[in-house]
Amino acid sequence: MIELLEQVRQGQIRAIARLITRVENSPAAAEQAIQALYPHTGQAHIVGITGSPGAGKSTVVNALVQTLRQQEARVGIIAVDPSSPFTGGALLGDRVRMRDLSGDPGVFIRSMASRGSLGGLARATASVIKILDAAGFDYVLVETVGAGQAEVDIANAAQTTIVVEAPGMGDEIQSIKAGILEIADVLVVNKADRPGADRAVRALKMMLHLGPVGGTRQHGRLSSAPSSENGNMQPGWDIPVLETVATEGKGMSELAEMLGRHMAYLRESGEWLKREKERSWREVEMLLQLRFMSQFQASVPTETRDLLLTAVAQREVDPYTAVNQLLSKTESE
Amino acid sequence: MIELLEQVRQGQIRAIARLITRVENSPAAAEQAIQALYPHTGQAHIVGITGSPGAGKSTVVNALVQTLRQQEARVGIIAVDPSSPFTGGALLGDRVRMRDLSGDPGVFIRSMASRGSLGGLARATASVIKILDAAGFDYVLVETVGAGQAEVDIANAAQTTIVVEAPGMGDEIQSIKAGILEIADVLVVNKADRPGADRAVRALKMMLHLGPVGGTRQHGRLSSAPSSENGNMQPGWDIPVLETVATEGKGMSELAEMLGRHMAYLRESGEWLKREKERSWREVEMLLQLRFMSQFQASVPTETRDLLLTAVAQREVDPYTAVNQLLSKTESE
Repeated sequence: MIELLEQVRQGQIRAIARLITRVENSPAAAEQAIQALYPHTGQAHIVGITGSPGAGKSTVVNALVQTLRQQEARVGIIAVDPSSPFTGGALLGDRVRMRDLSGDPGVFIRSMASRGSLGGLARATASVIKILDAAGFDYVLVETVGAGQAEVDIANAAQTTIVVEAPGMGDEIQSIKAGILEIADVLVVNKADRPGADRAVRALKMMLHLGPVGGTRQHGRLSSAPSSENGNMQPGWDIPVLETVATEGKGMSELAEMLGRHMAYLRESGEWLKREKERSWREVEMLLQLRFMSQFQASVPTETRDLLLTAVAQREVDPYTAVNQLLSKTESE
Repeated sequence: MIELLEQVRQGQIRAIARLITRVENSPAAAEQAIQALYPHTGQAHIVGITGSPGAGKSTVVNALVQTLRQQEARVGIIAVDPSSPFTGGALLGDRVRMRDLSGDPGVFIRSMASRGSLGGLARATASVIKILDAAGFDYVLVETVGAGQAEVDIANAAQTTIVVEAPGMGDEIQSIKAGILEIADVLVVNKADRPGADRAVRALKMMLHLGPVGGTRQHGRLSSAPSSENGNMQPGWDIPVLETVATEGKGMSELAEMLGRHMAYLRESGEWLKREKERSWREVEMLLQLRFMSQFQASVPTETRDLLLTAVAQREVDPYTAVNQLLSKTESE
C-alpha cells in the first residue's frame, strides 16, 4: 500500500486507478489511504458540473477540459452521471467525446457507478476527489446530473459549482429554480446559438436578481452543521451567466477564466475556509454515523432485530418505541 | 393534540392539514403523533409515481385520481416534485389541473417543499404518508421526479411504484435504465398517441426482459438492511408496460386495475410483509441515527468541534483521525 500511495503522489495514472478501485471496495483501505494522502490535498480546484439532461453538459466538460489542457493544467474527471458518455452513455455508443480526451496523459477519467446506495456514492466520490487532489491534478471536475441529494452532496464537495442549462428546456426552468440555483456559483447557457438563448439568459439573471428563492444552500441532513445562513449568496460574488457553444469551443476560455476568478474570490474572501469547514463537518458526521451504526449493529443480535421489525411491519410496535427498545437493550449490556 | 388526532382519524381535512404542519415543524410532535396513529396505519395503498420531467406525470396523477374517485376511493396526494403543478409548477400558472381536484372533499393534496435537507424531506414524507393512512384514505399517491436518493427513499416507502415515461425522450432512456427501472412495479408510457410510442414500449419491455440491469433495488445507505437479493425482480409479478393518454383519460382504468392487482400480488406472495419489514428497518435506522447524532452533539462542546473542523479544513488533521478524537472525548467522560 505504501508504495502504491507513493506512486499516486507522483501522479502515475495506473497507480491512481488501482488505488481508487481498492478504496471503493474496502472501507479499511479507504481509511488508510485517506489518512496518508489527506495532508497533500487542498491544492486542486474541485469543480462540480451539473445541469439538466440534454443541456450538453458532457460536451461542456469535454470542451472545458481541452481549454484547460491548452493551459497545461492536469485535469481529473469524475463522472457520476448515468447519462454521461463517460458512464452509462458510453454503453449506447457515445464514446466519441471520451476518445478526444482519453489518450491524453494529463487527463484522468473515472466513472462512478450509480449502483447501490447513493449515500455510498457520495462517500466514494469524496475519496476519489482526495486521491486525485493528492496526485497533483490542478483541476478535479465532478460531473453529475439533476438536483437530487447525491448531486447536492457532491456539489457540497466542490469549491466551484457550474450549472449548465440550454435554451428551450421549458419546464426545466422550474426545477432549476427549485433546486439547482441554490448550488450554482457559475451559470452556463450552452447551445447559445439556438433560438431562445437570450430569453434563457434573461430568465436566469432575473432569478438571480430575485435573490435566493426562499431557500438556503443545502447541507446534508443535520441542520446543526455550521452553515452559511443566506443561501448561496456570496457577498462579493455575483453569480455570472455565461453563454457557450461547447460543440465549437465557444465561451470556453471565458469559462476557464471564471473558474480562476471564483477560486481567487474564495481565497480572498475567507469563503474557502468556511466551505472547507462545512465540507469537513459533513464528512466527519458521515463517518461518525457509519461508526455508530456498525457499533450498534454489532451489539444487537440479528434475531432480536428481526423480531422487532416484524412487529413494526405488523403495526404491533411503532418505530419510535422500537428505537427505544433497541437502545435500552444495548445500554443494559 | 389528542383531540386533533381524533379529528384526523375521522378524516377531517382541516385537522389533517394542521397536524401535518405541526409534525413538519416539531420532531417531538412527530413522535407523539406517529406513536398514536401508527396502529391505525397499514390500510392505505401507498403508490409512488415518478418519471422524467416532461413525461406528463402530473397529468397521469390527475387522471388516475379522477378514475379512483369514480370508484368512490378517497385519495391523498403528496407532491414532492418541484416541477409538479401541485408545488413549484403552480407558481408558473399551471394551476388548472390542481383545480380539477381541489374542490373534492374525497381528495387531500399536500405539497412538500424540497427546501432544506432532502433527508429531512424523506423523513417528513414518511410521516405524512402515515397521517393520511391513519386518516382513512384508500390511496396515498406520492409524486416525485427523477432518480435521486430522495426518490429512491420515497419509492421505498411505497407499496407500488409507477414509473411514467413518454415517447421521444431520447437519452432519457439511459437514465431509466440506470436507475428508475430498479424501482418500478408498473411502467407507463404516457402520450401513447404520439409517434414512437410503440418503440418506447418495445424498448422498455426489452430492458425488463434482460432482467435487472446489474443492480438491485436500492435500500438507503446501509447494506445490512434485510433486503431482497435479486433486485426488483418479484417472483410471480411481471412488471407490466401500460400505454396511456392521460389528457384524454385513456388507459386510466387499466392503470387503476393494475394497482389492485399489484396489491393483491403483494399480499398473496408475502412480498407485502417483506417490504414492510424493509421499510421499518430504514425508518428505525433513520431514527437511530438522529438519536445518536443528537446525543453526540450534546456531549461535545461546540468550541471543541469547531477547532477540530478548522484543523481538518486546513489539512492538519484528517477526517478519520478527527472522528477518533471526537469519540475518545465522549467516551472518556
